Amino acid sequence: MKDSFVTGQRIHKLQASLRSRNLDAILITEPANRRYLSGYTPVDHDIQESSGILLIPKKGSPWLLTDSRFELQAKEEAVSFTVELYRKGMSVLLKTLLPSLGIKRLAFESHYFLHSAVGRLGEVLGKSVDLVPLTGLIERMRVIKSEEEIRLLKQSVLRNEQVFQQVRSMIAPGMTEIDIALTIERTMRELGAERPSFETIVAFGSNAAKPHAVPSNRVLKENELVLIDMGLVLQGYCSDMTRTFFLGEPDSMFLERLRTVRRAQLAATKAIRAGAVCRAVDQAARQIIANAGYGSYFGHGLGHGVGLAVHESPRLSARSRKQLQAGMIVTIEPGIYLPSWGGIRLENMAVVREEGCELLNEDISGLDL
Amino acid sequence: MKDSFVTGQRIHKLQASLRSRNLDAILITEPANRRYLSGYTPVDHDIQESSGILLIPKKGSPWLLTDSRFELQAKEEAVSFTVELYRKGMSVLLKTLLPSLGIKRLAFESHYFLHSAVGRLGEVLGKSVDLVPLTGLIERMRVIKSEEEIRLLKQSVLRNEQVFQQVRSMIAPGMTEIDIALTIERTMRELGAERPSFETIVAFGSNAAKPHAVPSNRVLKENELVLIDMGLVLQGYCSDMTRTFFLGEPDSMFLERLRTVRRAQLAATKAIRAGAVCRAVDQAARQIIANAGYGSYFGHGLGHGVGLAVHESPRLSARSRKQLQAGMIVTIEPGIYLPSWGGIRLENMAVVREEGCELLNEDISGLDL
Repeated sequence: MKDSFVTGQRIHKLQASLRSRNLDAILITEPANRRYLSGYTPVDHDIQESSGILLIPKKGSPWLLTDSRFELQAKEEAVSFTVELYRKGMSVLLKTLLPSLGIKRLAFESHYFLHSAVGRLGEVLGKSVDLVPLTGLIERMRVIKSEEEIRLLKQSVLRNEQVFQQVRSMIAPGMTEIDIALTIERTMRELGAERPSFETIVAFGSNAAKPHAVPSNRVLKENELVLIDMGLVLQGYCSDMTRTFFLGEPDSMFLERLRTVRRAQLAATKAIRAGAVCRAVDQAARQIIANAGYGSYFGHGLGHGVGLAVHESPRLSARSRKQLQAGMIVTIEPGIYLPSWGGIRLENMAVVREEGCELLNEDISGLDL
Repeated sequence: MKDSFVTGQRIHKLQASLRSRNLDAILITEPANRRYLSGYTPVDHDIQESSGILLIPKKGSPWLLTDSRFELQAKEEAVSFTVELYRKGMSVLLKTLLPSLGIKRLAFESHYFLHSAVGRLGEVLGKSVDLVPLTGLIERMRVIKSEEEIRLLKQSVLRNEQVFQQVRSMIAPGMTEIDIALTIERTMRELGAERPSFETIVAFGSNAAKPHAVPSNRVLKENELVLIDMGLVLQGYCSDMTRTFFLGEPDSMFLERLRTVRRAQLAATKAIRAGAVCRAVDQAARQIIANAGYGSYFGHGLGHGVGLAVHESPRLSARSRKQLQAGMIVTIEPGIYLPSWGGIRLENMAVVREEGCELLNEDISGLDL
């Protein structure tokens, strides 16, 4: 199945949606949405420095607007798109392009468009074009994954596990958190990843009490816990995995807490199926942690969707009343965080199926408690 | 001089500016502005995942609003701020906080606020608060650096040169662009940098023809040119430097072009002083490159400001009619890019002074042609 066939189907579906909303076209600025619809791969390092936007009219062929730096790549990757370069900024190009395509009602991604940029665009276009804010349209298409996407996500997860195993075998006293994080990120690149899907977390002992710890120069000692949260991007698709282990002979306190987190993870995994309510899945894990006496030490949601972005819908949180659907991908990542002692988090990824869920992870060494 | 004294002075100046504009307060969302005014250091990886915002009233003590993940760090770093946690999002917190402070006209940073977020904030606050879009207010304060900031920028530049020298001595045939880029970024961390200030560029031979080349698995051969564009963040302040050299005995074509770029760089350096018009400085370099017959192969501007952000005002471009002022920092980075042959760029940083400019770089080995 050629990529351009897949993106063609997505464009087709989007165009039907535009017509039903009485829109003439939409501007796509959100980078994962751009890749989903076009196959064009650049990452935007900053919302203020875009590597291109899509203009999808309600019918006919779609456009990719970018600057000369990206011309070659745009033409290679977005094969079914007409690539047009802007020399004086996007607004100026749109001012001539929109009338030539008869576009009067133009939607834009309100959740990935700066307030000032909307103002500037409105000024340049004047009254001839109505700008219609829209949010989540493409994200809602992306939330249910095709079997091909699930296959790519599985590859990303397995490659991530491979990196973990390789680095795990090298971890020894004397290394710093930064040493390990950099080794992980280097190994990701060596094993073909495009990049890490987020900044790798490596935390020793009490540093692991912060769910979003930043690797430091802290030196690993014997008999310390190590928390690693890591993910990579492979063919566009993200992985996200957390493992917590003990260097040396684990003490009973560590083992008890690790088992609690693992039991919470298994309970949540069992609760996942099409139709399950997100907060009920979160609750399945939270209840076990609370029963063990750690209820106030699990301060974040149970999980989140993963795809072309590492954080996307759905959210497995204590508040979400939404229902899971077959083809969604979620992380299952309960944790216990005790200031001054440390933290334990375990995270797997799974695909939601009609009758349950299917783990994408295969390496559960260290989880078999 | 304590950091809180410096940020206190900046807040004071900003508050005077708010009063003169008849504004009751401003929300600061742009991460470099946030650090400039508060000393709070986290980086936002995504505009949709902020690590906190500032609320600066026209008088009285300023606020830092964040979530529980950042509580400790916020209190440690933003010592003169009242740290307040939002549990249900920023809008909900502001809905109660603003009336208690008597804030009716609230400015926000239009260039770093999502269109949808402004809409949501407006809905939550209702008619009792006027939202006033503002842009560039703090950036205009940041553009002139204090002597203390210049000292920090110099340290960042020298640390970056140290990394370059250390890695330069290891570069040998057989290494890939990615190898070298990762070695550079690892060395930065080892030598105390917070992080790279942008994604390191390493390009061999014809790959260097793209000004924004992304490191690949291309293997370095004998007798090839190597272009490295690298920068780091030290105590918040960015450096940015480019060097192009030849592995092996340089051929005459390479040397001629390198000399042309270097002469262009020196001419621009000489043209920099308080009062000089930006495009005249750009022209000083561009003319030399054009005279050598490469006019159409220098497709970008000559330079940009650097500070807490790696790209900031002023822009040394062919279009800017603005004048340089003493205390501004600029890069001076002319280049020649020839498709299929390769590219040469040299980049230094300098501080604008009344009578000329002062280079922040000290290592000009390889530039002494």
